[in-house]
Amino acid sequence: MPKKVDRHERRTLIADALMRVAARQGMEAVSLRHVATEAGVSPGLVQHYFRTKDEMMAFAMAVVRERNQARITEAIRQLGERPAPRPLLRAMIAAVLPLTEESRADGQVALAFLAYTAVRPDAAAGIGEGTRQMLTFMAHLLPGPDREERAAGLLALMEGLGIYLLGGHYTAEQALAALDAQLDLVLAAPDVAELR
Amino acid sequence: MPKKVDRHERRTLIADALMRVAARQGMEAVSLRHVATEAGVSPGLVQHYFRTKDEMMAFAMAVVRERNQARITEAIRQLGERPAPRPLLRAMIAAVLPLTEESRADGQVALAFLAYTAVRPDAAAGIGEGTRQMLTFMAHLLPGPDREERAAGLLALMEGLGIYLLGGHYTAEQALAALDAQLDLVLAAPDVAELR
Repeated sequence: MPKKVDRHERRTLIADALMRVAARQGMEAVSLRHVATEAGVSPGLVQHYFRTKDEMMAFAMAVVRERNQARITEAIRQLGERPAPRPLLRAMIAAVLPLTEESRADGQVALAFLAYTAVRPDAAAGIGEGTRQMLTFMAHLLPGPDREERAAGLLALMEGLGIYLLGGHYTAEQALAALDAQLDLVLAAPDVAELR
Repeated sequence: MPKKVDRHERRTLIADALMRVAARQGMEAVSLRHVATEAGVSPGLVQHYFRTKDEMMAFAMAVVRERNQARITEAIRQLGERPAPRPLLRAMIAAVLPLTEESRADGQVALAFLAYTAVRPDAAAGIGEGTRQMLTFMAHLLPGPDREERAAGLLALMEGLGIYLLGGHYTAEQALAALDAQLDLVLAAPDVAELR
């Protein structure tokens, strides 16, 4: 490893090693020692950058979120100026679904992190903020007095599709067809809600 | 432990111990030794019933599925005879969402299992069957030529709501409001789909 690597860069290298270990063997294989071996550094150096496993996990998850954000930004950019709500929502969601090798590896880390934080709520600090931002953004694109509930459902559906894709329960075609059907529904005229 | 415990019963006792360990410390803490200690039996006995961690995990997940099935059956029974699609779907989905302490513990095991099998597809054998059955059942209750896609979306939404409840991203109220909005949408007249 070159000597002039800066702090963020070195942390990212270690987080990448963590993600490779997690993607190959699952989060239970993630330990200071394993990650150090994978990154080709000493356990002491890993510990210098991450005092605890929680810190290491949270940083890896932050890297995954940054990558997802970059994928979303790129997908939106390709739509050109002023995209309509439907292509915008579809592009955003498809960009984070585990449909490529790269996003699949990231999805496995995200899933492992979810499982990890489900029993350690403290380690999840800051995650809720991203969810709230997505909810607000999506709600603005949806019609109806229940746009916030529609957005909450759409975001949950995105999460569930990701899980089913990672677990091999849905094929890519099934997941995208379900997404398209959902977009038809959530973008439909608001009076639909009155049928209740 | 009494001597006459039968095989299934003893396996269930061990699976329960596994689930307590997983719910408390996460799946990465699940090992033959930990589970044996928690169950108050010898590691050798655990190994007698489960040759590998995969087997132990798969059995614990089967126990969770059985409990979910029992919750669904009970929720449907309380609806009386010939319930309409909306209360039927709502009762089924609410029954498996992690809204009580018990279903939350089961949800953590299910989430840990998902993360575990995402990197070990072989350990997930048989899971897809339950998903297919739920899809078929739900699709029969939904209107529209895209009923299968609607069902796939509804099931994914259920999974995502569970994840967000476990992670503390959604409150129970938010999750149920999103579910209600979604039921409004998926049960709406089929011509909605033509708006695409």
